[in-house]
Amino acid sequence: MAKDKKMVEAITSMEEDFAQWYTDIVKKAELVEYSGIKGCMIIRPAGYAIWELIQKELDRRFKETGVENVYMPMFIPESLLNKEKDHVEGFAPEVAWVTHGGGEKLQERMCVRPTSETLFCDFYSKIIGSYRDLPKVYNQWCSVVRWEKTTRPFLRSMEFLWQEGHTAHATAEEAEERTIQMLNLYADFCEEILAIPMVRGRKTDKEKFAGAEATYTIEALMHDGKALQSGTSHNFGDGFAKAFDIQYTDKENKLQYVHQTSWGMTTRLIGAVIMVHGDNSGLVLPPAIAPVQAVVIPVRQDKEGVLDKAYELGNILKGFRVKVDDSDKSPGWKFAEHEMRGVPLRIEIGPKDIEANQAVIARRDTNEKITVSLDELEAKVGELLATMQKEMLERARVHRDEHTYSATTMEEMLDVAENKSGFIKAMWCGELACEEALKEKAGVTSRCMPFAQEEIAKTCVCCGKPAKSLVYWGKAY
Amino acid sequence: MAKDKKMVEAITSMEEDFAQWYTDIVKKAELVEYSGIKGCMIIRPAGYAIWELIQKELDRRFKETGVENVYMPMFIPESLLNKEKDHVEGFAPEVAWVTHGGGEKLQERMCVRPTSETLFCDFYSKIIGSYRDLPKVYNQWCSVVRWEKTTRPFLRSMEFLWQEGHTAHATAEEAEERTIQMLNLYADFCEEILAIPMVRGRKTDKEKFAGAEATYTIEALMHDGKALQSGTSHNFGDGFAKAFDIQYTDKENKLQYVHQTSWGMTTRLIGAVIMVHGDNSGLVLPPAIAPVQAVVIPVRQDKEGVLDKAYELGNILKGFRVKVDDSDKSPGWKFAEHEMRGVPLRIEIGPKDIEANQAVIARRDTNEKITVSLDELEAKVGELLATMQKEMLERARVHRDEHTYSATTMEEMLDVAENKSGFIKAMWCGELACEEALKEKAGVTSRCMPFAQEEIAKTCVCCGKPAKSLVYWGKAY
Repeated sequence: MAKDKKMVEAITSMEEDFAQWYTDIVKKAELVEYSGIKGCMIIRPAGYAIWELIQKELDRRFKETGVENVYMPMFIPESLLNKEKDHVEGFAPEVAWVTHGGGEKLQERMCVRPTSETLFCDFYSKIIGSYRDLPKVYNQWCSVVRWEKTTRPFLRSMEFLWQEGHTAHATAEEAEERTIQMLNLYADFCEEILAIPMVRGRKTDKEKFAGAEATYTIEALMHDGKALQSGTSHNFGDGFAKAFDIQYTDKENKLQYVHQTSWGMTTRLIGAVIMVHGDNSGLVLPPAIAPVQAVVIPVRQDKEGVLDKAYELGNILKGFRVKVDDSDKSPGWKFAEHEMRGVPLRIEIGPKDIEANQAVIARRDTNEKITVSLDELEAKVGELLATMQKEMLERARVHRDEHTYSATTMEEMLDVAENKSGFIKAMWCGELACEEALKEKAGVTSRCMPFAQEEIAKTCVCCGKPAKSLVYWGKAY
Repeated sequence: MAKDKKMVEAITSMEEDFAQWYTDIVKKAELVEYSGIKGCMIIRPAGYAIWELIQKELDRRFKETGVENVYMPMFIPESLLNKEKDHVEGFAPEVAWVTHGGGEKLQERMCVRPTSETLFCDFYSKIIGSYRDLPKVYNQWCSVVRWEKTTRPFLRSMEFLWQEGHTAHATAEEAEERTIQMLNLYADFCEEILAIPMVRGRKTDKEKFAGAEATYTIEALMHDGKALQSGTSHNFGDGFAKAFDIQYTDKENKLQYVHQTSWGMTTRLIGAVIMVHGDNSGLVLPPAIAPVQAVVIPVRQDKEGVLDKAYELGNILKGFRVKVDDSDKSPGWKFAEHEMRGVPLRIEIGPKDIEANQAVIARRDTNEKITVSLDELEAKVGELLATMQKEMLERARVHRDEHTYSATTMEEMLDVAENKSGFIKAMWCGELACEEALKEKAGVTSRCMPFAQEEIAKTCVCCGKPAKSLVYWGKAY
């Protein structure tokens, strides 16, 4: 089959063309198929299973902090979208409008949600009356639509899957606390589960969310040295509450506005996993989100007893997400296929192994091969998966640190921006003009003002005036 | 608070006004809030948590049969929707059209999916080439939009949540087998988890899905004697495959069309749970889908040690979905609140109970109160939940059977339809004319031709010609 052949052909190497390498992986690892609608992707089983594991773990962590899930309508009437001025300016240009329904023209058109702040605010204005109704810590898992001109699977698509948390609190302090709490939850999740180290920080005013007082972000560095914004958490203060009239009576029976937050992560995370861990043989999945953690591949499965032994191994390993590949393809073909899909461990079992009561385990990330006695197989697999999870994070951290540069003068900034790829740490005066100048001259945008501030110089890298904060700059997806 | 007061006010009794009773429950048990968009509901935490439990269990059962989850775009270009003639005729009148996006008028308008057969067919035509690519057994969890004139929370809304499975098979036999397998999976799920007995059967041609060769259904009887179609499974034969050109080369290298199925269940199931099990104190939830299975309510929590003991009980019961209600409301208020929400077991613990090393357990379905030694609490709670799950199904079955009537003549049919409410079993000749006449004269529609056929007469209840099959008739939601 022409379709099958492609699987074992080499993909474009990432050194040659990183963008093409990425596209090859999402297609050949069967994560995504393009649909007939420009900019909309079909997430195939191998891709969706990763998303399910991400959802399950994130949702569990959310609920531990008191989050409750809800479901809001996918449509927003135009008048509702228009209620908060900054918000509508940010989103109106990129929405899809429903103008007809049930064979008739609508009296008021509705957009498909690009995000649901307005819906949650309208909802909260109905159900919040007293301090006893607070806090509300709601979240929903859904898809949203944003009309994008240029799209790439997982990274930027017209429709994407995400979760959006929306909370309402009695005080400004509580809202700020929740905003930071969720950002840290996101960063911990990315590091512990996706094995991707994050820079945690605050967005500049230029880069913050439409309608927010403050936006916090986690930023990751991809293998090609570009940054990827991986999750954001916004503190709205009482701006939306005033636009939507969300008030409660406090313990002294006085009317007060609530303070709100929102926070989200998306299927973009799958793109991050590909671009941080992938190699020229395909995807490399951290064990924690690998739909198949170990694949058992019988070698010479035509020989009596081999297939049975393979099933036996599958059974021994049933505590993990294990698969026995008993298809009629050749072992070499199977090796390439499961490498492409990023399966962490491959377990080879053939007649000679059976005789010696052993199996060969190959690690996807290092290609290391280990011969293991079958009596120790289960323990060894558990150990290797844990080691791999840890080492993948460590390698990504080393790569990130090796590609994090400093610039204290504009000359240094221009030099690094032109000749290196990675994060650039530089001081900033806080003025929009300098941010725009750096974009124009060096082609970099501010990724964040990291929580871990350092003073690497006294003056702004751009204008030379006194610096207010350290900023991570970079080229971003 | 006015809002809180409503909670303990009585709801409309079901005998007085069943429709109002239903509306009262969905609002007062805080399952749903109305949104600003006509016909779209907000599913609140108490409602969404039920849906999550339904999803989790259904998804587990799906995967055991080899189902893989995917995600398809929410939009369907008009030309794609138009590809299968019967299908477009069935759905085009009730879709929502997106005509503008990103500030521009679209060249081709797109509808928001009312169901995704066309998208899956387009996808399958791209990824199926050989017999080795079959079967494809894919499913997605998403929301769909159908423009409804009259809407009711969970039962019929413009947007609703569901799962839609779409499969492609090499042979007609395999497709039929999968269609029936999923119908039985649905029915077993409803009986074992929702405690709702189902009639399994086939729809008449008049009632089948737009584009299907055969539609199978499970039908439940609500407390008011009306029927609710609770899940459907369709066999498409090769009709869609021909319209979308989905072919594969078989082992003899010949081109063949695939045979397809689809099957779905929706948030409507929550409506069924309300209308089968609810009573005049509110919701009654089967333990298997109760977000809170047992609530511990301290009595005289101002007394030293009471609250601590309540937490201790919560800890003893942590193997269940347990909640300790330590709010500052009165015990009576709490009782009413948790009754309204349908919590299966209430566990009361007060100073005298503590002295006697006991607690009082009240069953939501029977109001039975049992005094239990704390040493046996965990075992007793497990036992009561299991008993309750079983007895709720049994009671629903008795109610259903007591409200299932037979009619062998048109006089009997008219009499039962007018004076009773429930299923009516009657023989049918197979002609559309008789189906329409029964609708017009008796106000009943065919619910299904049950798998368990009986011959209660030789002739059609309507025209007197030889009967072809037994049909369940009824008034339906």
